[in-house]
Amino acid sequence: MLSAIPQPTDARILIDFRTGDDAGVYRWESGPALVQTVDFFTPIVDDPYVYGQIAAANAVSDVYAMGGRPLTALAIAGFPSEGLAPETIQQIFLGGYDKLREAGVALVGGHTVQDPETKFGYAITGAIDPARILTNAGARVGDGLILTKALGTGIVGTAIKFDRVPAALMEHAVASMLSLNRIPAEIIERLPSSAVHACTDVTGFGLAGHASQMARASGVTIRIDASRLPVFPGVLEIAAANRSGGLGTNQQHFGGGVRVEAGVPRELEWILYDPQTSGGLLIAAASDSVDQVVAALAEAQVAASRVGLVQPRIDGLPLLVGP
Amino acid sequence: MLSAIPQPTDARILIDFRTGDDAGVYRWESGPALVQTVDFFTPIVDDPYVYGQIAAANAVSDVYAMGGRPLTALAIAGFPSEGLAPETIQQIFLGGYDKLREAGVALVGGHTVQDPETKFGYAITGAIDPARILTNAGARVGDGLILTKALGTGIVGTAIKFDRVPAALMEHAVASMLSLNRIPAEIIERLPSSAVHACTDVTGFGLAGHASQMARASGVTIRIDASRLPVFPGVLEIAAANRSGGLGTNQQHFGGGVRVEAGVPRELEWILYDPQTSGGLLIAAASDSVDQVVAALAEAQVAASRVGLVQPRIDGLPLLVGP
Repeated sequence: MLSAIPQPTDARILIDFRTGDDAGVYRWESGPALVQTVDFFTPIVDDPYVYGQIAAANAVSDVYAMGGRPLTALAIAGFPSEGLAPETIQQIFLGGYDKLREAGVALVGGHTVQDPETKFGYAITGAIDPARILTNAGARVGDGLILTKALGTGIVGTAIKFDRVPAALMEHAVASMLSLNRIPAEIIERLPSSAVHACTDVTGFGLAGHASQMARASGVTIRIDASRLPVFPGVLEIAAANRSGGLGTNQQHFGGGVRVEAGVPRELEWILYDPQTSGGLLIAAASDSVDQVVAALAEAQVAASRVGLVQPRIDGLPLLVGP
Repeated sequence: MLSAIPQPTDARILIDFRTGDDAGVYRWESGPALVQTVDFFTPIVDDPYVYGQIAAANAVSDVYAMGGRPLTALAIAGFPSEGLAPETIQQIFLGGYDKLREAGVALVGGHTVQDPETKFGYAITGAIDPARILTNAGARVGDGLILTKALGTGIVGTAIKFDRVPAALMEHAVASMLSLNRIPAEIIERLPSSAVHACTDVTGFGLAGHASQMARASGVTIRIDASRLPVFPGVLEIAAANRSGGLGTNQQHFGGGVRVEAGVPRELEWILYDPQTSGGLLIAAASDSVDQVVAALAEAQVAASRVGLVQPRIDGLPLLVGP
């Protein structure tokens, strides 16, 4: 869609929308660079306060995924002119505000429009050290791949819509979506810059989509071990009946560059393409640092899983999925 | 709606959403402060390229109104999943991009969703000198009020929707909406800081709404001379039949604090409340600088009009409109 837009020649733009990274980076006059991103979506849960919190956790995540610290937010909201109680709208804003505050982010403004469909989210600006930007393009052969949250929020979201999600599963998924990617981001920041080569957060394109983007940008092939994928307990059981339209779109869009080996259960294949909301970080860690990164995450109570490896590039095949 | 949100205690927030100013201001680690704003809306004209340009001119305007220089943009877009040609969407993005480039703004990212209604706009970040922020609160008794664009874009927009706008009027209004508020903002920046006390841009609340906000924030009453109001040629003639819902809402919301004296034509009263898109700057200039400001604007081909005066506060009456 944006291919018609000419390439700018502004030396202050360090990262823009053309590289498929999580956020743009722009050099400020002095001090750290700006890292900027925007995301908003329709309700994924029924509770308005929780919806607002998830929208905020999801929006700031892109800044963490680049190695930045989120600092300011502009709210972006659309609400129907009728049928939504003022208290409901307040709860959405309040949930978002509380989560922003937890992240150390100041709400400086926003824009609300009448909208037949409720939408909520934020434009986020953070600070980032231009010498330590974590892009999709840094993964190297031999790197270990770490994922910091379980998968399945898209399937859970669909099941919520049709009122058929087990309570325990919903609790797990909601707790995960509410959790900021701040702790893993701060752990990465404290490690030597040689420990982590690339990072992204797993959101709308699903693990397959985001891993494929990382592989393409880095000129490598990524191998995922399906049996190592962390999933919410109970989500595989309801996967068949609760695949969203986005899951199918991801499969169509990225599937051509994915080879799934024999023995991978079809539920795990679906999970690969499941669009995530407020998903975890996908980290490519240097082979001699993977254990250290996983240990540091575990110590901070982040349930990180080693889910794969970076291999030499196989033409036209960014992603290999083994059993 | 936002009253439930607790007041933050972050010393880096210089201006936030609570004061009715055009944009938030946040102190950066060093260098100028950030000035941030977000705006997006449904199409106001039929031509997608022009719509994109107007959306960009409108979004950056809030930064100019605060005394800042816009630098980065995140696109915010909603398009129907069917019925909009890809070329149309490209033209919207391209129009926006070209206008941003004219303003010296880098597009660093964005988010697009499926939306039953087309929407387009931007979150904008600019740089601002914290010592020279132009808020609504600075107007002083004796100041002259200057308006840098003619009024009537809301009425023209309604007439466009129903295909009953005279070609010459549309041309005038579109040219005005396309024009950046950059030149008046740069003129203000070059003047001594004592010359201009307050500034805002006239947008959704109409001249009456934005002037009332300035009056309340400054603790004054503003007097507008209706006969001095600049309007697009031909807009008064079609005003009666083309008042938008927003005009009525503004009248309801702000009318209680407005006294309109006898002799003001009802068409000009409507114009006062007409919501503007990409409207002009409303500038409160020191009494001994008004002539200098108007002359500097005129020299730069900005058709600025002296539309009123700042008077001592009359309780409950932020706005007085004389014939």
